Order: sequence, then structure tokens, then C-alpha cells
Amino acid sequence: RINPDRLWDSLMEMAKIGPGVAGGNNRQTLTDADGEGRKLFQKWCEDAGMTMGVDTMGNMFMTRPGTDPDALPVYVGSHLDTQPTGGKYDGVLGVLGGLEVVRSMNDLGIKTKHPIVVTNWTNEEGTRFAPAMLASGVFAGIHDQDWAYERQDAEGKTFGDELKRIGWVGHEEVGARKDKMRAFFELHIEQGPILEAEGKDIGVVTHGQGLWWLQVTLTGKDSHTGSTPMPMRRNAGLGMARMAELVHEIAMKHQPAAVGAIGHCDFHPNSRNVIPGKVVFTIDFRSPDQGILDGMKAEFETCAPKIAEDLGLSVEIEPVGHFDPVTFDETCVSAIRSAAERLGYSHQNIVSGAGHDACWINRVAPTAMVMCPCVDGLSHNEAEEITKDWAKAGADVLFHAVVETAEI
Amino acid sequence: RINPDRLWDSLMEMAKIGPGVAGGNNRQTLTDADGEGRKLFQKWCEDAGMTMGVDTMGNMFMTRPGTDPDALPVYVGSHLDTQPTGGKYDGVLGVLGGLEVVRSMNDLGIKTKHPIVVTNWTNEEGTRFAPAMLASGVFAGIHDQDWAYERQDAEGKTFGDELKRIGWVGHEEVGARKDKMRAFFELHIEQGPILEAEGKDIGVVTHGQGLWWLQVTLTGKDSHTGSTPMPMRRNAGLGMARMAELVHEIAMKHQPAAVGAIGHCDFHPNSRNVIPGKVVFTIDFRSPDQGILDGMKAEFETCAPKIAEDLGLSVEIEPVGHFDPVTFDETCVSAIRSAAERLGYSHQNIVSGAGHDACWINRVAPTAMVMCPCVDGLSHNEAEEITKDWAKAGADVLFHAVVETAEI
Ligand SMILES: NC(=O)NCCC(=O)O
Ligand SMILES: NC(=O)NCCC(=O)O
Repeated sequence: RINPDRLWDSLMEMAKIGPGVAGGNNRQTLTDADGEGRKLFQKWCEDAGMTMGVDTMGNMFMTRPGTDPDALPVYVGSHLDTQPTGGKYDGVLGVLGGLEVVRSMNDLGIKTKHPIVVTNWTNEEGTRFAPAMLASGVFAGIHDQDWAYERQDAEGKTFGDELKRIGWVGHEEVGARKDKMRAFFELHIEQGPILEAEGKDIGVVTHGQGLWWLQVTLTGKDSHTGSTPMPMRRNAGLGMARMAELVHEIAMKHQPAAVGAIGHCDFHPNSRNVIPGKVVFTIDFRSPDQGILDGMKAEFETCAPKIAEDLGLSVEIEPVGHFDPVTFDETCVSAIRSAAERLGYSHQNIVSGAGHDACWINRVAPTAMVMCPCVDGLSHNEAEEITKDWAKAGADVLFHAVVETAEI
Repeated sequence: RINPDRLWDSLMEMAKIGPGVAGGNNRQTLTDADGEGRKLFQKWCEDAGMTMGVDTMGNMFMTRPGTDPDALPVYVGSHLDTQPTGGKYDGVLGVLGGLEVVRSMNDLGIKTKHPIVVTNWTNEEGTRFAPAMLASGVFAGIHDQDWAYERQDAEGKTFGDELKRIGWVGHEEVGARKDKMRAFFELHIEQGPILEAEGKDIGVVTHGQGLWWLQVTLTGKDSHTGSTPMPMRRNAGLGMARMAELVHEIAMKHQPAAVGAIGHCDFHPNSRNVIPGKVVFTIDFRSPDQGILDGMKAEFETCAPKIAEDLGLSVEIEPVGHFDPVTFDETCVSAIRSAAERLGYSHQNIVSGAGHDACWINRVAPTAMVMCPCVDGLSHNEAEEITKDWAKAGADVLFHAVVETAEI
């Protein structure tokens, strides 16, 4: 069993870096705070006897050697970056859970045939630079590194420049390891309400929802809110409003197998007495069903131009994030399930509602995820909370699955 | 007649200060550019023999003496501040038109019994600090100066601090002049399509629309766009969308006697994968009919809480700007109409769709406005345009009305 107090203390220590305004975190990717968080993680890993590799996307690989020099490593980890108003556990639990696995192996004098590599993937959240899971995606060969480097934040800063600025461009070629992985395990909070509602300690993640992020640019005409007659208006704000309702209706048709919402929206020029001449917003559609997922995108793409036309607007729809629904590796999933069984934790199969680095790594290595509950299913909120017992159960299961796969 | 080339050159010269990104201006109130624009206007006025008074709200009063020391001054002017993506004429034409009146009087050796005071009112636009027409409102005794000083921009900077920072807090008590005004005349571009469509040179402004600005704060709960089931969402963005449609429906019921739209809207935390837990937006309702105007506000206040409740949101509605419909002074309006007649310009009565400093000054002094057309009725847009002939006609009419009222 892992040491729950040490794990918890490390979570609380990491949460001091990039504090939020309401008890959570704002440690967005490639900010100074992200750099600081990386350094602390590096120090902890080196104290635990691991050595560091960093690739050109800033992905961190902390290695505990195995006894067989030819054996492929078992990877374990998640991400340290957070939302602008994020919680203390989303991602962090998976990274520090991986560290806790190694610390516990050290405590118990466990040696494995296969090396263990604890990983911190860069820019999982995708808030500052779309898409989400950017660096694990480049690692897995889904995205091109040059394209990733050019991703821009709201201020026009690029991923490549910011990675360099915080000093975390590594020397390893990104993805060089991808054909030499025995497995990848990721522990994560559920970020949804199911496990808590069912009273389960552990979610054995069998599948992940797929996603489409569509960035929509509506262009009308800036004009005076007072002196422009209603029939002459080309109000991009009203267009956005109708499309928000459309997104909601499309998602509601497929309940409970789909979700949809607009999280990001900018009015231009955003002045009280100007009809907005431009609105840019991003739609987030998800479903575990490929047909529903692609169908939602298609339905929006069919209906949105009609809404725009009615209002005299032009519309551009650009996909800025996408992954297909995921089926995780049966052997790895079984390792998670039997670890929970063996340890006496209540568990159930679950579909991940969120995207995770594991979704991309699953394309190049046998992969599975273990989830623990979170209070009220709340995540992407500074009030995100878990209990120490839930963290313990998740890390215990991770520990057993990793050690079993790495072979004593 | 005034000198149209000189007027035009001055308009173009002023437009160099605080240039926009698309040929217009971003010379928002109390920015460095506003300070620079004021200095240029001061210099031009002093070169024309006027002396400056500035009040504690930063309102500028440039005086050309009259021949009778006891005669009350005739005021003429508008505002030099612009929208963030504003045009070169909105407000500026009225201020520089006033200056051109004095320059032309100098050219022609005209002396009047009553002094002429050319005015630049601070923060007419209301974009940076709500409400609009803030400083003419304080001057007219509508708002309290302390309250005005506390108005904040989006970054939390206050009106009072910014006025001090740019060095334009004057010594005159604001409103001290308000009982000693013979009249106030304001020339302005129409900012709407009517005069151009009707082929008229001059709008004789008989009335002004009233306005309600309502700032709405919708509070839901930040949560994950992927893993939060649809029924558990408290999506403030969807609430905003439904209220935008409501605003539109309310305004459409009263066609053509009302308008309504949302110009300003901020999502929080504004992240692609977070259900917006808070959205703040401002509604702009206007009508020339008091009953319709107040009825629209009341209808929104009745319907909005139901929309919020359906979505599990809380709603706060705060009025942040208001003026009643205005009827301008008959004598001043006649002076405008007979000037247009005498000069041979085609003209028609018109209701101002926008708010103007004249709407507040009308409360304390006999007031009227003259309007000239603008291309496609477009304003609050960098592409706002007028012809030199339109500017000439407006300034000629202003010249005649002012000189007649100031008595040769
Ligand atoms: N786990 C998580 O919140 N990942 C961010 C990407 C997503 O929105 O699913
Ligand atoms: N004239 C003008 O655009 N004034 C700003 C206040 C308003 O929105 O009416």
C-alpha cells in the first residue's frame, strides 16, 4: 500500500504553486508557475532516485531503472498544468500518484524487471493553447511539432516561444520513446458525479468520450445600439445566442450519450453601445459514440449557416480540437480491475467524460486509466475536492497495476 | 458661411490622435490620447482668441467674449472621446464645428452681445466608464460627482483617478455655469440611416430616445464541459443566450418605436472546456416613448428570473445607465430650422436615436441639436464616414443658429 499522508502532503505542497483566487489553482501551461511546478516535481523525483529526460515538447520523463536492461519501461503519470480557475487534483493526482508509486517501491525495497517512468505531459488542459492534450498528441504522432509550436494563446504568444521562455525545451526527440513502452497507466479524478453517487472507490476506465472543439467566428457589422434600426442590424451577438441554443438542443437530443456547450466566447468590440460586429466562440461537443459525435458536428455545420444568413452574418467554423472515442487496452484495464479487487476496493467500469493524455498514448502503447471520485462531480472549478481516502484508493490501485505490469 | 476646408482639415488632424486599427479612432475617455486631443483643441481655441475654463469633471469651456459683460453665454459643442473602435466624426464634428463657428466669426469680424463658449464634455461615450454622458450629467445635476469619480473601467481604474492622471481635473466647480446659460447647441452626425435615405442635408432634432442600460450578472457553476452530465449543469452562458433572445423579442414587439441589444458580454472563466459559471453582460434598450421604454425594462425584469431559474442560475440586474426621452427647446429648435431654411439646405425633423450631452444640458438650459447624415447610417464603427458637404451644411446651420441666438 502507498503512503496516503505523503501523497496528500505533496498534493498540498504543489497546490501552493500558482494559487488561484478561491482555494484552487491557476497554474496554466507554460506560465512561470508551470515552470516552478516542474522544478518541484523534478526535485522530488531526483530525491527518490529517478533521472530526468525532457523532450522537445517539454514532456518530462522521470526514470526509475529496472533490473533488466532490455526491458521496456512502464509509464505512469498525467499533467501538472491547470485551468485558469482549476482544482488541486485534476492531473496533479496522476503525476504525484506516479511519484508515490515509486516512493512506495523504494520504501518497500521493491525492484522491478521493467523500468518505471513517471510522466508530466505538457499542456493537457488546452485552455491557453488549443487543443487539449497537445504534447501527448505530438508524442503519439497525432499532431506535428511545428504546428504545435505555432499554437497561440489569447495574447498571440506561441506555444514554442513560451516553452523556450520558461526553459523547458528538452533535448529528446518527441515521440522517440513511443515504440518502446510496455504500458501507460494514468490515475485521474473522475471530474463527474458517477462514482460518488454509486458509492464506489474506484472507476475502472474502459472507454473515453470523443470530442469536437469547433471555433466559430461570426461576422456582422459594428454599429450604434441606439440609432441603428432593428432591420438594419447585423448583430453577431444575437447569432452567437441562437447558436448556443442550437448547441444545447443538439446535445439534448442524444441524452445521456452526449454533451455540448460553449465555454469560451469573446464579443467585439465589447462595448455597451455597439452592436457586436464580431463574436468568436468555441463549442465543446462530446460523446462516447462515434456516430453521435460526428453527427452533432455535422448537424451544427448544417444549421449554423442558416442562423447566420437570417441575421446577415457570415460564419466560419474551424475545428480546433478533436479525438475519437477511445477503447482502452484490455490487459491494462484488467490489471486495474484485479488490483482493485485484490485490495478490496469497491469498483465499477466507467467511461471517461473528459479527455486525457491516456487517450492519445493508447494509440501507441497498451494503456488504461484508474479513476477516483470527486466531491459533487465538480472539476474545472477551484472548489474541486477529493478525500484523502479516495486519493489513497486510487494510488493503491495504480501501485499494484504498475508493479504487476513491471514484474517483480 | 463657414470654411469647410478648414473644418475638414481640423477633423483629419484630430483623427491622427488615438488612431484605430481600421482607419477610425480609439481615443477613449481619460486615456493619454484623450489628453493629447484636449491639448490640441485647447491650442486651436487659444489661437482663435478664446480663453479656457475647466471644471472638476474635466469639462472644457473655451470662451469668446461678448460685447455685453452681463449677457449669458451661448454654448456650443459636443465631445472628443471615442469608442474603442470609433469613427472620426462622432462627437468631434460637434466640438470642431463649434470651433469653426468662432473661427468664421473672427474671419467675418462678427461680434456678438453674448459670449460664445465652445465645449468638450468628458466621457460622452460611456464605454470605458458607464454611464454615457457622464460629465454633462454631473454638470446638469443628474449625477453626483463623488459617484462619478468612483465609476470603474474593466481594469478597475476609477474615473477620478484617471482624470487626475491625465491632468485634466479643473478648478471650476462642476455645474456652476448651469444657471447662466442662454442656450446650448450641439451638431452631431445622425449615426443612423434616415437623412441619407431621405436625401436630406439637415436633421432638425426635435426629440431624443430614452435609454435603459441594464447590467446583468448570471451566476451558475464552473464545471467540466466533458464530464458534467447535461442535467447537472448550471450554464450561465446558456442563460445569457436565452436572455439575448428575450431582449431581441422584447424590442421587436415595439417596432419601429424601440431597439434592444447586448453589446458587452464577458464569460467567466472563458475557457473552452469549462461550463461558464458566470456571465456578465449589458443590455441597451431605447425608445422615444417613455411607456415603451420603461415597459421593456419591466418585461425583461419579469422574464429573466424565470429563464435563470430554469437553468439553476441566479440573476442580478443592475441599471447602469438611464435617461428619459427628451423634448428639445422649441425656440432653439426653431433657430436650427430657420437657419437651414435661410441657407437653402433640405431638412426634416428627426428623433435622435443616440444619447447626447445635449439630452442632459436640455434639463438646465434651452437646447437643440442639428444633425447631418452619415454614410449607410454607420457609427460606432471605424468605417464611419461623412462627406465634406454634409459637414459644411451642418456647421453652416450651427453657425447661423449660434450667431442669431448670441445676437450681433
Ligand atoms: N481531464 C481534463 O480535464 N482534460 C482537459 C481536456 C478536456 O477538456 O477533456
Ligand atoms: N452619440 C453617442 O454615440 N453617444 C453615446 C451614448 C449612446 O450610446 O447613445
